[in-house]
Amino acid sequence: MTAKPFALSVKARIRNEEGKVLLVRRSRRAKGNPGKWELPGGKVDPNEDIGRALKREVAEELGIVIEPIRVAGAAQSELSDRVVAYLVFDAQAISGVIRLSDEHSEAAWMSATEAGKADVVPYCRPFVAESA
Amino acid sequence: MTAKPFALSVKARIRNEEGKVLLVRRSRRAKGNPGKWELPGGKVDPNEDIGRALKREVAEELGIVIEPIRVAGAAQSELSDRVVAYLVFDAQAISGVIRLSDEHSEAAWMSATEAGKADVVPYCRPFVAESA
Repeated sequence: MTAKPFALSVKARIRNEEGKVLLVRRSRRAKGNPGKWELPGGKVDPNEDIGRALKREVAEELGIVIEPIRVAGAAQSELSDRVVAYLVFDAQAISGVIRLSDEHSEAAWMSATEAGKADVVPYCRPFVAESA
Repeated sequence: MTAKPFALSVKARIRNEEGKVLLVRRSRRAKGNPGKWELPGGKVDPNEDIGRALKREVAEELGIVIEPIRVAGAAQSELSDRVVAYLVFDAQAISGVIRLSDEHSEAAWMSATEAGKADVVPYCRPFVAESA
């Protein structure tokens, strides 16, 4: 048996003044988890600092500038050829207006109750949704 | 205010057949946390795969070969110039006999109760110790 390699992805849990978390909905044409809600973020490029990667990914996906505040936790998701390790940060929005890339079809600020009812990808659920 | 950069460190929670976790004690001459117990592991080099980094660090520190199994969680530790983000993996020992580098003075397999009584660095505690 050969173990699958681990790939690193960083995710941002951005809250607004009401404590709601910003979630984005994956495009219907996405390869994995089409139409599901997730935290913004993505792969860390080779040689890239994790905080910088988070800011870059959120800027690409949402058009806004954020600052990571602290590590919120971790999760994983097993794919056919690799295991993605997610490092989740609490982050704050600094500036900018949300403008989605074609990776996502929608963005929404959700309370833990709202996220609990939404179709959120499993590895993001513990960070955003009230457990049922 | 300029935010501190985040640095990534990977840590291994290796269990034996009795469910005890392998902890290592930092040298008395260590710059940070001298004499305290921690999980083995360390910094990810630029351009290095996280699973490979974990195996390399554990091989350097303990002389044993391990395989990461799954993501166990994350933690952080704030230093004067940066914040270290720890990604903790459950891992299994594959081969080798423990031989410490001069970074550590001791290695011990501890139950959650034993780790709860030991002087474990704060960011590793939730992964190894029974909460008091």
